[in-house]
Amino acid sequence: MNLNSIVNNIRCKKSFLCVGLDPDLNLLPKCLLDYEDPVFEFNKAIIDATSDLCVAYKPNLAFYEKLGPSGWSSLEKTIKYIPDEHFIIADAKRSDIFNSANMYADTFFDYLKCHGVTISPYMGLDSVSPFLRKNKWAILLIATSNPSASAIQNIITNNNIPLYLELVHQVNSWTDQYNTMFVVGATRLSEMKEIRKIASNHFFLVPGVGAQGGSVKDVFNYGHNKNCGLLVNVSRAIIYAGSDTDFKDEIRQVSLSIQQEMELLLKDKKIIF
Amino acid sequence: MNLNSIVNNIRCKKSFLCVGLDPDLNLLPKCLLDYEDPVFEFNKAIIDATSDLCVAYKPNLAFYEKLGPSGWSSLEKTIKYIPDEHFIIADAKRSDIFNSANMYADTFFDYLKCHGVTISPYMGLDSVSPFLRKNKWAILLIATSNPSASAIQNIITNNNIPLYLELVHQVNSWTDQYNTMFVVGATRLSEMKEIRKIASNHFFLVPGVGAQGGSVKDVFNYGHNKNCGLLVNVSRAIIYAGSDTDFKDEIRQVSLSIQQEMELLLKDKKIIF
Repeated sequence: MNLNSIVNNIRCKKSFLCVGLDPDLNLLPKCLLDYEDPVFEFNKAIIDATSDLCVAYKPNLAFYEKLGPSGWSSLEKTIKYIPDEHFIIADAKRSDIFNSANMYADTFFDYLKCHGVTISPYMGLDSVSPFLRKNKWAILLIATSNPSASAIQNIITNNNIPLYLELVHQVNSWTDQYNTMFVVGATRLSEMKEIRKIASNHFFLVPGVGAQGGSVKDVFNYGHNKNCGLLVNVSRAIIYAGSDTDFKDEIRQVSLSIQQEMELLLKDKKIIF
Repeated sequence: MNLNSIVNNIRCKKSFLCVGLDPDLNLLPKCLLDYEDPVFEFNKAIIDATSDLCVAYKPNLAFYEKLGPSGWSSLEKTIKYIPDEHFIIADAKRSDIFNSANMYADTFFDYLKCHGVTISPYMGLDSVSPFLRKNKWAILLIATSNPSASAIQNIITNNNIPLYLELVHQVNSWTDQYNTMFVVGATRLSEMKEIRKIASNHFFLVPGVGAQGGSVKDVFNYGHNKNCGLLVNVSRAIIYAGSDTDFKDEIRQVSLSIQQEMELLLKDKKIIF
């Protein structure tokens, strides 16, 4: 999927919502537990309830790997079920030497048919380059949403800039906004503003809204660009909105209200009319 | 497995060899391809040929994930087959926010029964803390063996030290040598020397010997401590030593010659007698 398609989808759906598909067996609605593959049934219900309201889905691999081989099989079925127009992100946070990274890229892009993979940048260019493929996306961890992230990511370098900005400069010297995005947490607004200054055309994948405390409005104000430039991920606040037989309705209600907020923000900045 | 057991195994076996279990279907000996699970048969043969010569095994997850659910099942069977006294490292290079990292820790420690997991440190303490469990090991990427690693890892910080040392200082403030190790590449000898100065009691997991160009002798000279303090990993140079029906003999020959070199080095420094 290329940059134009992502931007067109945002305009069409009036939404920059990414839904995190993070199924935790302990939190699944009870009514699903008798199915042969409750994880897939849960994801199917989430996708049915949200597909017209979001532009991307992001399964986090931790939730599938925990289930062993059956988790991988649920993940494969889920990805096949996602409608074609959606951008699919494997939230895998991988990073390895070239030949192993190349295997991960084959796994996520060719075998699982994802469009993007989250990547940790600490090992440098040759660990990232296998993911720089045409119409595929390396989504680099830059300023993550977790509480202790800044202790490392904001270390000041002898160029007198924080490490996370040094990394953005390095990534910009490797490639461009057509096959890389940056992970910038909703809890890192001042960093988001700084990154936007040196990456005006890049998309940001933004976790941390909802359960982690960030807000859609703040993220938009600090991070948008002329094409929107944001995919805001919400996982727990959407997928665990309900726990009973009407959980699909609850999921839809929460997603709809997020989409409506996004539509107003996009209109306000004349990104859509 | 605790620090004492690892050190005792090294003394007993006169070896600090870790064998990388990285099965690539394209490189497997032809004679294995008719088995129902060629990956497991290959690993079984490697383990049979090396278990008395090495103290650790390190499956790299990239090679198993590429095969989908069957890869996970081969990995599970392989780990069950490894004799009890060996230290088992899931080379997964994971890193995620607390609740997802906790799931990865459950997966690798509880479900797969590995003793250690490789972890990328860029997200900070709360992404690492779920792996800091009793008798389990967080093995942090510090100075990796790949060619472009130093472009990021050797960035000088405003404390006038390179980033990789800044990370070792941070990790030392979180925990100690009883549940953390550091990944230090055999291609990063000057960094190894610096890290040893501030982490005199830690074990280093050392990739990069063999196919990547590092040597056991150099690693030992730059990195050993009074308990040896090294697990030197060799993957390709051992597991693809042969490609025909006698591949097990070739694997054993290469491993034996590495173990013999290690024995001499350990004796020379009076770590064993």
